[in-house]
Amino acid sequence: MINKLVVVGVGLIGGSLARALKQARYVQSVVGMGRGLHNLQKAMELGVIDEVATSVETALDAADMVVLAAPVGSMKQILSELGPYLGSDTTITDVGSVKESVVTAARAALGDKFGNFVPGHPIAGTEKSGATASLPDLFNQRRVILTPTAETREVALQRVTAMWRMAGAEPVAMDAQVHDEIFAGTSHLPHLLAYTLVGLLSRAKLPGLGEDQSVFDFAASGFRDFSRIASSDPAMWRDICLANPKAIVKNLERFRTQLEELVAAIERADGKWLLETFSAAKKARDLYIDNQY
Amino acid sequence: MINKLVVVGVGLIGGSLARALKQARYVQSVVGMGRGLHNLQKAMELGVIDEVATSVETALDAADMVVLAAPVGSMKQILSELGPYLGSDTTITDVGSVKESVVTAARAALGDKFGNFVPGHPIAGTEKSGATASLPDLFNQRRVILTPTAETREVALQRVTAMWRMAGAEPVAMDAQVHDEIFAGTSHLPHLLAYTLVGLLSRAKLPGLGEDQSVFDFAASGFRDFSRIASSDPAMWRDICLANPKAIVKNLERFRTQLEELVAAIERADGKWLLETFSAAKKARDLYIDNQY
Repeated sequence: MINKLVVVGVGLIGGSLARALKQARYVQSVVGMGRGLHNLQKAMELGVIDEVATSVETALDAADMVVLAAPVGSMKQILSELGPYLGSDTTITDVGSVKESVVTAARAALGDKFGNFVPGHPIAGTEKSGATASLPDLFNQRRVILTPTAETREVALQRVTAMWRMAGAEPVAMDAQVHDEIFAGTSHLPHLLAYTLVGLLSRAKLPGLGEDQSVFDFAASGFRDFSRIASSDPAMWRDICLANPKAIVKNLERFRTQLEELVAAIERADGKWLLETFSAAKKARDLYIDNQY
Repeated sequence: MINKLVVVGVGLIGGSLARALKQARYVQSVVGMGRGLHNLQKAMELGVIDEVATSVETALDAADMVVLAAPVGSMKQILSELGPYLGSDTTITDVGSVKESVVTAARAALGDKFGNFVPGHPIAGTEKSGATASLPDLFNQRRVILTPTAETREVALQRVTAMWRMAGAEPVAMDAQVHDEIFAGTSHLPHLLAYTLVGLLSRAKLPGLGEDQSVFDFAASGFRDFSRIASSDPAMWRDICLANPKAIVKNLERFRTQLEELVAAIERADGKWLLETFSAAKKARDLYIDNQY
């Protein structure tokens, strides 16, 4: 049971966690912090939080748990603002999509309280953002990756694990660097491909299209699904690029090399290569879907 | 009203068209043709077709309308097989995702009956294939691109237009080359990106992942949607690559150039460029979605 939960950044993820814990009756009181006062007031109206923080000091006073659900790019500053006021028995965790950079920032900002910090990343989300987009069942049966370090206190890890279980999620422990490698591929790369494709098409000048026509007028349902993640929060994805550049660039370069091979196969009209390559991908995708349900 | 409709290739598209026309009571009798006897029998059982063709000659005898719904790569051969038996008052159309190559094949195969051929492409589909995947409302409020040539007879264009309207679709006329340019961007490119991404990830060797673990275990819902089209029919997409190589390669090369710019921006930690680029894409995608509903 959490008596006082502080959520820094009451958006889709922070708001959904608060809602899930309230629904499970696992939290007494939720204090919301953040830069957007309008969003916090909306969160109050919706019952996502019980109180808007008036100062860092009063917000953190007697808090059991602090969840950092702000964009990855603001973590460093938030951690240094919160650090001095963090109680020695307060557990702190985050939901950032990149883990190594957050661990580095937390180690620098929290000093001897770094052992109370449990780096986390719930694998859930929608392309929407803000408290109004939050859902109490967003984490239901979703994995939450926790990347504790050698310094992480066992009790802190246990508290964060218990909290996510109560929110319906399945906590999984992993090394921070492995996390960043995996998500550069399964999450960061697809988002960047979707942004790039939509950007490219929106600028396309096509012969025979009228002034009031767009190539999107001729997009089918496959495109709608493919491009959904291009409606994600641009600031969040800028931050992720800046926080995980090495693994992301490696994946983008690999992808570019694959496209080069594809272009070569099309240019030499290599039906065999194309069929084999597409069949292998279909097989992998069908298997992934079968394993999901 | 169509008395006798011949569907060559009773798959997702051909089967759905037959179902839609039957539901609208716009067709008396549907004859199915194709290489997969099992699929045709299934189509009979499901009531998608009324009869399996025993020969090209008897199938085409007294047919009002022939719809070629076979993969683009087999169009040329099918057209030359059907050509000699096509009645002078039989209208023929296709549903291929590429239009210039089909027009060229039809012109060569049909001779003086080429005026009865109306090239078409319904903008609808799912990642599934086969007669069992067909749906009577697949074309509801979907666009169907028709790319008549200078030789196309007005009566043939009117018949095909009427047929698609009865199936719930909205016919739109367009030049075949413009069609192929547009769809290289909005359809062919996303499918190839999805195949390439899933292929890349399925071969990824990641440190810290167990033998029984896959990167797909850590994929979120965004990835599921993004990769849906990678479950599409590989033979169909091989054919499309071979039928529309010029426009596809041009789009792939443009995409590769965009990725190069993205990599450069990440490497120089250019938050401004990233935010502007992602914001422009999000704006375009949100606008496209708003216009859809």
